[in-house]
Amino acid sequence: MATIVDLNCDMGESFGAYKIGLDEEVAKYISSANVACGFHASDPVVMDKTVKILKENNVNLGAHPGYPDLMGFGRRNMNVSPKDAKAYVMYQIGALSAFAKANNIKIQHVKPHGALYNTAGKDYALSKAICEGIYEVDPSLILLGLSGSQMLKAAADTGLKCAKEVFADRAYEEDGSLVARTKPGAVITDEDEAIKRVIGMVKYGKVTAITGKEIPIEANSICVHGDGAKALEFVRKIRDALTMENIKIAPLCEIV
Amino acid sequence: MATIVDLNCDMGESFGAYKIGLDEEVAKYISSANVACGFHASDPVVMDKTVKILKENNVNLGAHPGYPDLMGFGRRNMNVSPKDAKAYVMYQIGALSAFAKANNIKIQHVKPHGALYNTAGKDYALSKAICEGIYEVDPSLILLGLSGSQMLKAAADTGLKCAKEVFADRAYEEDGSLVARTKPGAVITDEDEAIKRVIGMVKYGKVTAITGKEIPIEANSICVHGDGAKALEFVRKIRDALTMENIKIAPLCEIV
Amino acid sequence: MATIVDLNCDMGESFGAYKIGLDEEVAKYISSANVACGFHASDPVVMDKTVKILKENNVNLGAHPGYPDLMGFGRRNMNVSPKDAKAYVMYQIGALSAFAKANNIKIQHVKPHGALYNTAGKDYALSKAICEGIYEVDPSLILLGLSGSQMLKAAADTGLKCAKEVFADRAYEEDGSLVARTKPGAVITDEDEAIKRVIGMVKYGKVTAITGKEIPIEANSICVHGDGAKALEFVRKIRDALTMENIKIAPLCEIV
Amino acid sequence: MATIVDLNCDMGESFGAYKIGLDEEVAKYISSANVACGFHASDPVVMDKTVKILKENNVNLGAHPGYPDLMGFGRRNMNVSPKDAKAYVMYQIGALSAFAKANNIKIQHVKPHGALYNTAGKDYALSKAICEGIYEVDPSLILLGLSGSQMLKAAADTGLKCAKEVFADRAYEEDGSLVARTKPGAVITDEDEAIKRVIGMVKYGKVTAITGKEIPIEANSICVHGDGAKALEFVRKIRDALTMENIKIAPLCEIV
Repeated sequence: MATIVDLNCDMGESFGAYKIGLDEEVAKYISSANVACGFHASDPVVMDKTVKILKENNVNLGAHPGYPDLMGFGRRNMNVSPKDAKAYVMYQIGALSAFAKANNIKIQHVKPHGALYNTAGKDYALSKAICEGIYEVDPSLILLGLSGSQMLKAAADTGLKCAKEVFADRAYEEDGSLVARTKPGAVITDEDEAIKRVIGMVKYGKVTAITGKEIPIEANSICVHGDGAKALEFVRKIRDALTMENIKIAPLCEIV
Repeated sequence: MATIVDLNCDMGESFGAYKIGLDEEVAKYISSANVACGFHASDPVVMDKTVKILKENNVNLGAHPGYPDLMGFGRRNMNVSPKDAKAYVMYQIGALSAFAKANNIKIQHVKPHGALYNTAGKDYALSKAICEGIYEVDPSLILLGLSGSQMLKAAADTGLKCAKEVFADRAYEEDGSLVARTKPGAVITDEDEAIKRVIGMVKYGKVTAITGKEIPIEANSICVHGDGAKALEFVRKIRDALTMENIKIAPLCEIV
Repeated sequence: MATIVDLNCDMGESFGAYKIGLDEEVAKYISSANVACGFHASDPVVMDKTVKILKENNVNLGAHPGYPDLMGFGRRNMNVSPKDAKAYVMYQIGALSAFAKANNIKIQHVKPHGALYNTAGKDYALSKAICEGIYEVDPSLILLGLSGSQMLKAAADTGLKCAKEVFADRAYEEDGSLVARTKPGAVITDEDEAIKRVIGMVKYGKVTAITGKEIPIEANSICVHGDGAKALEFVRKIRDALTMENIKIAPLCEIV
Repeated sequence: MATIVDLNCDMGESFGAYKIGLDEEVAKYISSANVACGFHASDPVVMDKTVKILKENNVNLGAHPGYPDLMGFGRRNMNVSPKDAKAYVMYQIGALSAFAKANNIKIQHVKPHGALYNTAGKDYALSKAICEGIYEVDPSLILLGLSGSQMLKAAADTGLKCAKEVFADRAYEEDGSLVARTKPGAVITDEDEAIKRVIGMVKYGKVTAITGKEIPIEANSICVHGDGAKALEFVRKIRDALTMENIKIAPLCEIV
């Protein structure tokens, strides 16, 4: 029975004149942030600003590397070789590290973004290459990946600390994988239901799969969103519910 | 009278399927390399490969940040604000640092590329912002800039070590600036003449300006090229001439 | 005394997951639209959607080519040669023409964007190259440029029809150029004042320069904005004021 | 028994300072060229130059649209939706059409590039969307696709003329698909063997599959390469062999 959990959120996804996300707002409620690094979103000026927001709000910094597909926001799978994906991830972590150093903070974790997260979650070879890239840049970095996925297995095999991520608003298959968004019931739209599931996953290590069967699941971090007023309100509700259940919210580095 | 000088060359300018430069060859003859970081040229896979080539050949690593203009190879001036240029430079140094760490070497210096080099050379505010960016990422980095330029002044004001670069194949104005390429006589095409000038600059701190007047010039590093067989042959000739004159070739960090 | 004028607005500036502008809303109030073509903003999917919005709202279509600088939204000057700028403009007009053809409409005009508009307005050689590019793609296209600028001179010299653009919310120098945004008083913030100036420019061909002197100015088209509720409300006010003055709002092709 | 065939080659794949391909040389030997349009390779300046080379050499012009992946040269599959792929193809054809118009020639055909070609060849929905995009831009364009592929089926269903492409240097499966490059024997390295196969495919409509079985195949166009002296020499040999067999080499528009 866990009594501590991290709240993580994607941040710094604006680009040039384009703004996405209520970064200043959501930073007040989370413990770790995944910061885009210029491949699927963001640019150096946005990254600098985002790192400063995190520092001010005492939120721990994570790199959020993605495929080089700004037009698709990194959400489309690309058939990138493990070798190339490794270099892409290293590059993006390095780029972010410059702003971390300039602001006198450390990168805590790495969470691949979008299609890279999804593909690596099922592809051990890709995950292993990504984890080796992370390890070579900084072996103290934590890999944040889908609970039960190939990414966590690869991280462990590589010698990286790893944190298990769960989703408040997504249904699970019996094997612990996420129900594909194209299937009915993939997204949990009832907020109370979602919060009840979060508590169950964190506190009891269990969740009801889409088939109705209860399955075991480990939760070190809950993925939340900051891309609108409604999302923000939901983050507040999750925080309150966790607090009511005496579950401490803390950054990944205090958990794994 | 200097008895030591660095030979620096741009490297790692290939991109994806596109190849530029005889990197493996020129690495045998130089002491420091300026490695493109993905803005005006290069990509993560090329950067990884380039850093490995440098390590094998015992060449010191420098970052070569440029404007975000792949289509123009960073050779066209862009009216980027000092604040944004600072972030661009930080990002690129950081990205390169990932491959440096993975290969267990350190970045020695930073030399802005192309139009960024030229514009910053004459624009103190831009140079100051760039130097502050470098300093914030790593205050031990050396700034390599045109001898006599605003970049060196800004580096000194920022507290960065700085190295003075001279060009073997370029004519100088009386004020020590490079003669614009659009003017006749801007490029020294006679190799023997060029080598004689190099020796004069390094050994005696003097060069004949395009007006015929002899002017003082400081030379910590000579810029050479590796983009063809002829360029390569010229690098070998410069090496030989320096050796004959008992001038030691050494990386920047041993000079400044 | 003109009794007819065009209202033009930039549109289709979204990119991938990034949204900018209330395109569906502003399309109801304007007669011509300048559609981004993928260099400073937009992508093929956005362009397709934007052309369809224009068709539905009976707004005439213009190409809005910019510098290849998505990160800077085309607002930073780039030292692109006239020859290259010509090719960039041709490429962008061609790209937009595909969606025009698919939707069975014609491109009416070309208005360069941002820094390209500003630089070309003062640089005859650049303007001439752009106009030649436009002419070679389709000699029936109208060039929409700043009233009194080099762009209009170059368009006339090239044999292109040209339309003179004025700004409701910008102050003018005595020579008819826009007061630089960095100067105090450059932007007219009082809406009533701005509307009075618009009426004066369209109906009487006159405007009061920032010096207080009344200068002549020709106005075929007024530039308006659709990037927020306030901008939209202002467009409605301009429309109403023009209608009250018996000035017809019509697309450029009915005016020049 | 065909007595006429087209020779097609990819061209205009340079980008900015990066050069690929012996375009001026290979243009002397082919009848149709597939010109990159700025997504996987090329830029507006290269496209303009390439179209001029084709016109001078009387080679017919084709668009060669690819995925938006310059870093991967369009060779990596991207999970782009049919709707988005359609818009990407339209955009690229349109962009090329600007240079065609300026040079007073017409685009003859469209051949998707690399991963887009391969994926569409097996994916009818993607092929159908691409063909509809082509048709909407210009219904007289010819679709050039792999003989026997879904692309040709989709082109026929859309009402586009289509041309069947074969490869001199690639082995075929019994079902007429190309043997994957990862399998042994996928590439025919013996030039005489390759030429014999070309003659067989063009003249007799037959080729020996990798299994040893003779299969029927239709050949309107042979894909050749211009990316090196060896490739060029091979094109010359194919030309000579075809001429010896009294097979006329002519552009696609004279064949389908």
